[in-house]
Amino acid sequence: MTDASLLAEKLIAAPSVTPATGPVFDVLEAMLEPLGFAVHRFIAGDAPDGPVENMFAVREGPPGSRHFAFAGHLDVVPPGDGWTSGPFAPERRDAPGGELLYGRGAVDMKGAIAAMVAAVVAVPPEAGTISFIITGDEEGPAIHGTRALIAFMRERGIRPDLCLVGEPTSVNRLGDMMKIGRRGSVNIWLEVEGTQGHVAYPQNADNPIPRLVAMLAEIDALTLDEGTDWFQPSNIEITDLEVGNPAHNVIPAKATARISIRFNDRHSGASLAETISDIAKRHGGAARPVISGEPFLTPPGAFSRLVASAIAAETGIEPEASTSGGTSDARFLKDLCPVIEFGLCNATMHKRDEAVAVDDLHALSRIYARIALAALHIRAG
Amino acid sequence: MTDASLLAEKLIAAPSVTPATGPVFDVLEAMLEPLGFAVHRFIAGDAPDGPVENMFAVREGPPGSRHFAFAGHLDVVPPGDGWTSGPFAPERRDAPGGELLYGRGAVDMKGAIAAMVAAVVAVPPEAGTISFIITGDEEGPAIHGTRALIAFMRERGIRPDLCLVGEPTSVNRLGDMMKIGRRGSVNIWLEVEGTQGHVAYPQNADNPIPRLVAMLAEIDALTLDEGTDWFQPSNIEITDLEVGNPAHNVIPAKATARISIRFNDRHSGASLAETISDIAKRHGGAARPVISGEPFLTPPGAFSRLVASAIAAETGIEPEASTSGGTSDARFLKDLCPVIEFGLCNATMHKRDEAVAVDDLHALSRIYARIALAALHIRAG
Repeated sequence: MTDASLLAEKLIAAPSVTPATGPVFDVLEAMLEPLGFAVHRFIAGDAPDGPVENMFAVREGPPGSRHFAFAGHLDVVPPGDGWTSGPFAPERRDAPGGELLYGRGAVDMKGAIAAMVAAVVAVPPEAGTISFIITGDEEGPAIHGTRALIAFMRERGIRPDLCLVGEPTSVNRLGDMMKIGRRGSVNIWLEVEGTQGHVAYPQNADNPIPRLVAMLAEIDALTLDEGTDWFQPSNIEITDLEVGNPAHNVIPAKATARISIRFNDRHSGASLAETISDIAKRHGGAARPVISGEPFLTPPGAFSRLVASAIAAETGIEPEASTSGGTSDARFLKDLCPVIEFGLCNATMHKRDEAVAVDDLHALSRIYARIALAALHIRAG
Repeated sequence: MTDASLLAEKLIAAPSVTPATGPVFDVLEAMLEPLGFAVHRFIAGDAPDGPVENMFAVREGPPGSRHFAFAGHLDVVPPGDGWTSGPFAPERRDAPGGELLYGRGAVDMKGAIAAMVAAVVAVPPEAGTISFIITGDEEGPAIHGTRALIAFMRERGIRPDLCLVGEPTSVNRLGDMMKIGRRGSVNIWLEVEGTQGHVAYPQNADNPIPRLVAMLAEIDALTLDEGTDWFQPSNIEITDLEVGNPAHNVIPAKATARISIRFNDRHSGASLAETISDIAKRHGGAARPVISGEPFLTPPGAFSRLVASAIAAETGIEPEASTSGGTSDARFLKDLCPVIEFGLCNATMHKRDEAVAVDDLHALSRIYARIALAALHIRAG
């Protein structure tokens, strides 16, 4: 029961391509209830962004005790074709470095959730309050997932002291990287309108493309920042251009582009939207931003030292405290409490033949137990 | 029989959306044969650029006499919807400025061909050789039209001394503009290849869009020339941009654009293709040119004075000698002999309810007769 690899097999065996509902949550509930957790499940949202199932499970500690939360997701990305064994038929196979467990979600992140459950067995109820913040939509639009869970907790006055997200942050070996922050992300659609006309009579037309080109050249030349102690420099990529004019002799009426900005905590989605909008307007265009996520940073301190110590104790590795990569649900959880991400090796995540080393699952459950125990005893601040 | 408006009605009544074959040529042949013309008709090309019908009709003058050619096209652009009367059912209607004749091709350019036929009646055969160079594909790809007629004439050693194209060059009043030249035209496809990747890891990708943007900014800043005595400045328009990347978080692998250059006789299609290709290469891209036509110029001289005098004698207007606007078949005919374009008012060309003033048709036939007579007596050079 406390073998994380057996728990991982059960979770993998319940197909849960994003957005997930139903059986995979039944499996997790059946693991947590015997451990003394009160399990709350609710379904949020409609098509196309839902329905999404979410679970908040809590085992209350003594009155006044601290509250440590594990967070994660049970949904997985579509398996794709070409698997050696069924993506939802977990299979163990020997490999030179030790036994591997194959299946969609093995590292991202049913394996980590299994390790969390196994870890909790080693944490006595009197140590403090432990909760699981588990969504069925992290890989999809994430509209009705962790955000709905945070709303659920707020309505009930529940606020953990610290939160650990089980995303697969390790790169080459379990323990070599944790994430203490993530960049924010904003996509901005740019549009310039002109007046259509014949290329032979440009005086009767107004070509929007040169204005879009000048706008993009100015945007491409921007230096948003030089990076910070904890973040790499914010970066702008132009990701699309579109005019769609099949007529060789026609000056088109409209030209559009799309940019994607990954930004550190020197900026907010709104501040960047304003910067870009000002440039767009100066070139006679317009900007429409869609903010995917704000950055978060849990500055190095007691929490990150605690996580690093737990990792080092089990693996002998001092983890790098990184803020690189894409977004995660930590962008939402940061509004609750300090949050750090740590989990399995991400080499096979989102790929066919996703696999986790069984030894890593056991080591991760021991690391998670150390983190939970220490977090419940940590001094505030 | 010499009423140009009646001839125009007969031509309009034979539908001939580009590329034209058959009946409309039968109608013209039936007009020319009684006037002593030997009519040669041939069909050239296959789908999709054909088949196209062409006609070379000639009335030989005395041995050693000069040869004046009328050139034009019997095909018309598609009528589109919403006509007051049928586009191929010619209809005369009174209007404040005098009677109008409605129908597709009224000004572009069945009306002008009717005026040419009526003009020939006033030119005695002993004045010299008169020919009609008439294609069924000027409005379309123009691959198997006037170019095939020129080949036909070359094979037979036929070379006019002067040629008048009946394109609708007049703007506000019949006679206010003739064309002594046309700009050339080249379209160039630009492409930059990069390496696809995730926007969160730009160091692992190579975004082609900034290079395309820089290339286009440099091209847009080019000054090709300041114009000449007879031509407006050459002009570059960016007519399309295309990446086609639906994924917000993906750096695309390729970015493309298309430009259209209308250029005067300071340049050739090849010289411009080389200029643009050099810029494209400097930004790591490639350029693929398609030359639609080289420029032509019949420098002001005896021929243009002759045309202007004929116009002034009938209308009291001194025509502007223009080189503006799009391309015409004069881009091919220039290889035969000096060529000038003069015809009806172009306000309704290519539009619904295309119409010509009946008085203009009569005046144009008188102008054409004056031009033909004078051209057959002009001194060489």
